[in-house]
Amino acid sequence: MLESSRWHDNNMEIVDQTLLPHEVAIVRMNTLEDIEDAIRTLKIRGAPAIGVAAGYGVVVAVRNLMKTNTLRLDSIEDVFHRLAATRPTAVNLFWALNRMRKVVANTGVNDGQTLVNALLREAKAIHQEDKELCLSIGRHGANILPEGGILTHCHAGALATGGIGTAVGIIRTAHEMGKSVHVYADETRPLLQGARLTAWELEQLGIPVTLICDNMAAFLMAKGKIQGAVVGADRIASNGDTANKIGTYSIAVLAKHHNIPFMVAAPYSTIDPSLKNGTEIPIEERDPAEVRGFRNTQWAPDDAPVWNPAFDVTPAGLISAIITETGVHRSPYNFGD
Amino acid sequence: MLESSRWHDNNMEIVDQTLLPHEVAIVRMNTLEDIEDAIRTLKIRGAPAIGVAAGYGVVVAVRNLMKTNTLRLDSIEDVFHRLAATRPTAVNLFWALNRMRKVVANTGVNDGQTLVNALLREAKAIHQEDKELCLSIGRHGANILPEGGILTHCHAGALATGGIGTAVGIIRTAHEMGKSVHVYADETRPLLQGARLTAWELEQLGIPVTLICDNMAAFLMAKGKIQGAVVGADRIASNGDTANKIGTYSIAVLAKHHNIPFMVAAPYSTIDPSLKNGTEIPIEERDPAEVRGFRNTQWAPDDAPVWNPAFDVTPAGLISAIITETGVHRSPYNFGD
Repeated sequence: MLESSRWHDNNMEIVDQTLLPHEVAIVRMNTLEDIEDAIRTLKIRGAPAIGVAAGYGVVVAVRNLMKTNTLRLDSIEDVFHRLAATRPTAVNLFWALNRMRKVVANTGVNDGQTLVNALLREAKAIHQEDKELCLSIGRHGANILPEGGILTHCHAGALATGGIGTAVGIIRTAHEMGKSVHVYADETRPLLQGARLTAWELEQLGIPVTLICDNMAAFLMAKGKIQGAVVGADRIASNGDTANKIGTYSIAVLAKHHNIPFMVAAPYSTIDPSLKNGTEIPIEERDPAEVRGFRNTQWAPDDAPVWNPAFDVTPAGLISAIITETGVHRSPYNFGD
Repeated sequence: MLESSRWHDNNMEIVDQTLLPHEVAIVRMNTLEDIEDAIRTLKIRGAPAIGVAAGYGVVVAVRNLMKTNTLRLDSIEDVFHRLAATRPTAVNLFWALNRMRKVVANTGVNDGQTLVNALLREAKAIHQEDKELCLSIGRHGANILPEGGILTHCHAGALATGGIGTAVGIIRTAHEMGKSVHVYADETRPLLQGARLTAWELEQLGIPVTLICDNMAAFLMAKGKIQGAVVGADRIASNGDTANKIGTYSIAVLAKHHNIPFMVAAPYSTIDPSLKNGTEIPIEERDPAEVRGFRNTQWAPDDAPVWNPAFDVTPAGLISAIITETGVHRSPYNFGD
């Protein structure tokens, strides 16, 4: 299985997810600019994967500062600031940067190589922990995942994390436990992560999958083909309100109407206890061109006005369970306590 | 305003809607094969427009039979049979063919030119009636259309009919009455009629429009941006259950959850009184390639299994009003009486 990012030959490498599934390009990240661009343009995406990449990204950037003799607390702070500015919604990015920032605070900047080594240890620890907690989320979730048709949205699989994935990790674990599951993957406009990544990853895992357009999920539910829905998350407020890929809220409402359990799977670090509820989660709005077409194909009028939020917020009341590495959480959620 | 099909210079012409909005190609339909292909490949689409085109198509095909000295009742019946086989869901096709079939029965095949003339008169009458009933639907609907944000799905505008459209006709009439409306147009995967046709047509009409992906509608509703939803229809059962473009049912459920009126607009000929309810409406399933990409761009894995229903069925209970040229119909619907 491909890794979303990794430390290899003393360098940071990522899989360029914008080119999948028809091209598997492993790209070396040599500069801070490379990493900023990779996160912004979704070459690397998925909240946990962004967290892991941010860790390695700090190592690359600080090592460059060392090499250019510009290693100072303020120049390192600039690295953190720039990485934090790449995407606003997924909290794992800020969480990982905070862990790296503590290493800087504890190690200091007097000996560059010592700092780089300490940062690399922490980045690898974040990655290793993510691998383990994906397995744990998978086990907790697999126990409660219904058999039958499982709807998922966007891509919360291996490439979205440092391990086997969150929502897809649950499906995979359930499949390995012998549960009979057939996944319906929303294609997930505008950037089609479901069509490009989820359908592809599940096929590679040998798990039955059918690709649908986002607007077909409701009719599938009405036909009794969906027994459960499970998605990832980009930020969860302390009351359980959950930001995830645009379209998630739609599924949650539809699932409620059809009495289908709707589950969210994410590392505990996705919970932002500083936020009382979902209205406080900043929602990224992206380039209108993403909605007017895809890649180099444009089908809408050139000047068509567009609304393009990358995420939406699902109220806690629509969420049957939030599955983290610590277990299965049920409503009412009180993550702030 | 472009016409979806027309009789021009003693020939049938259509606008190839698959090329819009970036190319406006007016194509002459010389043979029955041309017309079958145009309907099947959605060069002409929209239930009322298919009905109008079927009328002209019979004229072209019967005239060719006359020219080749093969004008017989059985060869004409073959024309009807082949046109009826192009698409299964929209009932207007069968309704228009039945009208044309009656002309054949009344006129006979002894004098080919007389038959062709009579068929052309009927085809033009169908077209003219559609123009007038679109205006009537527009007036009835505009009276009850809320001001504010109006969601629509697929394309139920001029090119989907022989006139100003059904759902878009209502929006247009309301706009002309001075009502303040801002349209949110679902792009409508897989064939993107909302992005390509609705956004384009509304811009031409000077009506404010914002294009969204299908999965964004729910979040817009949650934000209070949608005051009403209005869509067209491909077939309506006698109890009011309505088949329309895939994704319509999803909007109806979401509208109910958010207490937003959900309206259907269609000519009365869209009602199929022979069907008790929506479970009896045949739903066309189309080529998986439509979901794996768009035009020549493919983004899903080559062999990804796909479910691609062209339509879904919205239960009457979710429909606030069905607007036809005869007026505004409210639940409980009893079109079979």
